[in-house]
Amino acid sequence: MSMCENCTTCQSADKVLEGFIGSMDMETSHHRVESQKIKCGFGQQGVCCKLCANGPCRITPKSPRGICGANADTIVARNFLRAVSSGAACYLHVIENTARNLKSIGETKGTIKGVNALNKVAKVFGIEEEDNHKKAIMIADKVIADLYKPRFEKMEIVEKMAYKPRVENWKKLNIMPGGAKSEVFDAIVKTSTNLNSDPVDMLLNCLNLGISTGLYGLTLTNLLNDIMLGEPVIRAAKVGFKVVDTDYINIMITGHQHSTISHLQDVLIDDKVIEKAKKAGAKGFKLVGCTCVGQDLQLRGEHYKEVFSGHAGNNFTSEALIATGGVDLIVSEFNCTLPGIEPIADKFKVKMICLDDVAKKANAEYIEYSFENREEISNYVIDEAIKSYSERRGNVVTNAKQLLDRMMQMVSENRDAVPINIPMDHGHDDVITGVSEESLKAFLGGTWKPLVDLIAAGKIKGVAGVVGCSNLTAKGHDVFTVELTKELIKRDIIVLSAGCSSGGLENVGLMSPGAAELAGENLKEVCKSLGIPPVLNFGPCLAIGRLELVATELAEYLGIDIPQLPLVLSAPQWLEEQALADGAFGLALGLPLHLAIPPFITGSKVVTKVLTEDLETLTGGKLILEDDVIKAADKLEEIVLNRRQKLGLK
Amino acid sequence: MSMCENCTTCQSADKVLEGFIGSMDMETSHHRVESQKIKCGFGQQGVCCKLCANGPCRITPKSPRGICGANADTIVARNFLRAVSSGAACYLHVIENTARNLKSIGETKGTIKGVNALNKVAKVFGIEEEDNHKKAIMIADKVIADLYKPRFEKMEIVEKMAYKPRVENWKKLNIMPGGAKSEVFDAIVKTSTNLNSDPVDMLLNCLNLGISTGLYGLTLTNLLNDIMLGEPVIRAAKVGFKVVDTDYINIMITGHQHSTISHLQDVLIDDKVIEKAKKAGAKGFKLVGCTCVGQDLQLRGEHYKEVFSGHAGNNFTSEALIATGGVDLIVSEFNCTLPGIEPIADKFKVKMICLDDVAKKANAEYIEYSFENREEISNYVIDEAIKSYSERRGNVVTNAKQLLDRMMQMVSENRDAVPINIPMDHGHDDVITGVSEESLKAFLGGTWKPLVDLIAAGKIKGVAGVVGCSNLTAKGHDVFTVELTKELIKRDIIVLSAGCSSGGLENVGLMSPGAAELAGENLKEVCKSLGIPPVLNFGPCLAIGRLELVATELAEYLGIDIPQLPLVLSAPQWLEEQALADGAFGLALGLPLHLAIPPFITGSKVVTKVLTEDLETLTGGKLILEDDVIKAADKLEEIVLNRRQKLGLK
Repeated sequence: MSMCENCTTCQSADKVLEGFIGSMDMETSHHRVESQKIKCGFGQQGVCCKLCANGPCRITPKSPRGICGANADTIVARNFLRAVSSGAACYLHVIENTARNLKSIGETKGTIKGVNALNKVAKVFGIEEEDNHKKAIMIADKVIADLYKPRFEKMEIVEKMAYKPRVENWKKLNIMPGGAKSEVFDAIVKTSTNLNSDPVDMLLNCLNLGISTGLYGLTLTNLLNDIMLGEPVIRAAKVGFKVVDTDYINIMITGHQHSTISHLQDVLIDDKVIEKAKKAGAKGFKLVGCTCVGQDLQLRGEHYKEVFSGHAGNNFTSEALIATGGVDLIVSEFNCTLPGIEPIADKFKVKMICLDDVAKKANAEYIEYSFENREEISNYVIDEAIKSYSERRGNVVTNAKQLLDRMMQMVSENRDAVPINIPMDHGHDDVITGVSEESLKAFLGGTWKPLVDLIAAGKIKGVAGVVGCSNLTAKGHDVFTVELTKELIKRDIIVLSAGCSSGGLENVGLMSPGAAELAGENLKEVCKSLGIPPVLNFGPCLAIGRLELVATELAEYLGIDIPQLPLVLSAPQWLEEQALADGAFGLALGLPLHLAIPPFITGSKVVTKVLTEDLETLTGGKLILEDDVIKAADKLEEIVLNRRQKLGLK
Repeated sequence: MSMCENCTTCQSADKVLEGFIGSMDMETSHHRVESQKIKCGFGQQGVCCKLCANGPCRITPKSPRGICGANADTIVARNFLRAVSSGAACYLHVIENTARNLKSIGETKGTIKGVNALNKVAKVFGIEEEDNHKKAIMIADKVIADLYKPRFEKMEIVEKMAYKPRVENWKKLNIMPGGAKSEVFDAIVKTSTNLNSDPVDMLLNCLNLGISTGLYGLTLTNLLNDIMLGEPVIRAAKVGFKVVDTDYINIMITGHQHSTISHLQDVLIDDKVIEKAKKAGAKGFKLVGCTCVGQDLQLRGEHYKEVFSGHAGNNFTSEALIATGGVDLIVSEFNCTLPGIEPIADKFKVKMICLDDVAKKANAEYIEYSFENREEISNYVIDEAIKSYSERRGNVVTNAKQLLDRMMQMVSENRDAVPINIPMDHGHDDVITGVSEESLKAFLGGTWKPLVDLIAAGKIKGVAGVVGCSNLTAKGHDVFTVELTKELIKRDIIVLSAGCSSGGLENVGLMSPGAAELAGENLKEVCKSLGIPPVLNFGPCLAIGRLELVATELAEYLGIDIPQLPLVLSAPQWLEEQALADGAFGLALGLPLHLAIPPFITGSKVVTKVLTEDLETLTGGKLILEDDVIKAADKLEEIVLNRRQKLGLK
């Protein structure tokens, strides 16, 4: 962790943000890095166990076993499997709700914005049906049926979706998942008190959960959202705090379940709703993107130009975004909604509404989302946003009588309008967004050949997915992500990003075409000739599934297995349990996966060795733990070069 | 924690066991209490969070929030809900497998040993069907269907099983569970990184999970096992290490899923199998009970006189049991199978076989149980047991040629037969077992009236369920449980027990009729006239569900709600996450629940207050945290007396 000695906030790769947070008179997560800087070594190494009333037990050289007899290997593997299964649960919760929304759209004959995606998925699933709504229902039913199978019944879609050589590998390892929810369920059982003690069994179980997470939680969520919300189209967009326009009533969105807010985003531009906003003194409504659902909206920005003002930032930007005063209401339906936003939202009088109780914030109102009640819910959110806007912006009124009333009220309540202070120099205007496995291939002329040729010619040395979360402890907010990305593009390795990492990379300009100047000579030339940045934004963390589709399609095109590709993954600033489940998919796919911060496993030699060494002989993937940027880039480049060599490329 | 200063093992209420463990030259959990005596205060208070890469974070007065902003209330509630949901998952795993076994028995027209139980459950479920096998299938299907419902569909059996006034209370609190597996799943999601931060929402969620745990995991598992394995019949039985008979090949069983080993226990007394044992030099096979599945077998001992040698002890007796040398093979299908038995089993050459991968021990062989393959699995276990027996008991051979071969082999391998040292003074011969809601009522003449009359007359002041696990830290192994029980019976409060607590109580003689001498004058008189001990053994922890059936039937008989009964619960030595899920059911039922060790919640004022105070106004139940035996007995007695008074009893 690199922190400046004389300031109270951690560093951010985003210097405007760092300055803004430094000027805030409220505490944020960036401040708390300092007050939480003394870390528990037992926890960091994963050798602390709190599963029973005899504990907590901690492993030391003098106490190599917990009271029950569990050693470091058992304890570390158990903690790790529990984290992976919890993370898998999160993503599977998202795909379940997404599939249910798709089913409801089919049943109510709602709008299907992505017919291509619908047909593509139907084809993969082997569905033959003419009617699009029926097709949507059949797709949703297949997904839900798989999720709800018992553990002893294998899921059907896995074989349909996954690359054949991978399926063979997984069958050999006996990690083909049964019903995804039951798999998570039993993994939780496995990690409970005095149950499984076998580290290798538990680590293989992580791979099984990774497969469900990757194919259902990630990939299918993207594809089903493509059907409902429209497919990504490559375009330039505005990002950062500058997207906040105070002429509008601004609803900040956080979460991962885009289809849950799709009705809201559609009706916010209805004339009647705009009229309501105008009565309150605003020009209308805007959605301000934050965290992954904001990335997903940005990704599909082509279809939502009117309602979406742009993506403001990632998870650890959210506190500052609220503190600009420009946000009037927060709608959240999942993580990464930091508890830290609660006191800031209170201070800035920003009402919070949660649409899914799994993400209920302590001070938020919970409105249970259901497709059936979507009209009512959207109306309620709109009314509350207007109420909050009027409360907050004491000065915004439409006639003298209102002004007088408002002033009298504010004087009587001894309060002022909420101050607004938006650093309009924060962000960029020309971020390239809307990249997906489909839009990228279309951009390349409908085939991967140009990309493969560029790789073969050495113009692009290889591909790195720099993905996942943002945290504050791998050198600071987005610092490792940004530095590593710069180092990779300098070495002519093109970077694809998805997740909060994208939010960081776009806010520092690495996703703008001008960033080509930071790339190595070869990659720079490619970028300039194509008019693209050297870092491509696939959107939310869910879109890690899209990167993996790209990997699969490239392997398929070349007739090789995924672990042979000159392609590496890094989730340098992984944060959440979900990231670990994502990572497990990467490892199951046979990809090398770098993390800057170890996932609480170093206390076990067995677990560390299996993940960082032995796994390579099983799936082809392996974990790379490296907290130095240059060394991490060296290791990733070395793998790329080795793989190029094995493919007969210079 | 009370430990003698000059010995290296913790105290046990069971002094013979304590002496035996003290004489062992191998480390056990009783030894490791000392090496793990320095506890982490953050962990004990529940204010440590390891959910993300910014952590671990710990709450202190100077750092009242984790980096993300989560405060002590959020962190404690989240850790607690995760523990409760994991514990619920464990019990729900058990009922799912139990229901599947029942279904298979129905489908294969297998033996239904408990026709009364079958008819009782069918009636409760509203099933009208003449054919018993079809009835069994329909029962199983209803249970499985409920478990697999999505969260937004309420389970049907809850309303059929639960006491009406409770259902009304639960509906008012909005804690009626949807599909149990999905409820657990979403609770796990809720407790993942940056999701739910609302402590009250999370605590109410615990009650919801408690209801599924109690009605399905506990109560229905008992009833479905009654159908398959035969109903409990009150009888005297032998307990303790003295049950081990070295003339036989001894298979120690640990776990909770009795129906998984029912085929094995049936075939072990087949003539052909006995013949095999005889060839190896033994008289036949015996199952030696350990942990809860042993209690369940003891409970149904009337039906298994020939194969079951008796219950040897609870979870923390298992290491010593193996070290007697009398065990030849261990079959485990769930917890509480301590990792600590692994090195001891290795040393004593005891092969371990696990039948469920959730409970795979590091050094055990895993054989996946399935009903279809039950013959094959039983045969394999039998053959391995014979192999292990022959290996271990080098001196047991049937002819001179074998003897010579065996001796030559042992000399060449430089090894001896495994030493056998069974303390035959450990245990009792006259423990009253087989107590269930049905057998107890039958004993009372088919009605609860005699018990109610004794309570009304003050001969029995009240009823205390002293239940749950055994741990080593509430004054030592079973120490708090035994001392509290003695204190309660002295005060004329009859004690019902289920779980590892029963294993402790029976091994110290409190479940033998002679223990009546330890009861108060009134209770002693009752016990003597009925020939019963003052502490009644309902069997495994699953049978906590039976105690709660008794509570329900008593309330129904009296026409009052459960929280009005002079009935209290204590799980003084709770150990596992499962115990917390059990406890949540007790609280949902409106029972006062005492624990000697707090469940890692004291770091949050909100969580502690809700559970120990506010809950009383919601369900009628409350948590009582008290680590002093006398004070705990005082508090429980006071509640009993208050409730007597409110019912108009002296």
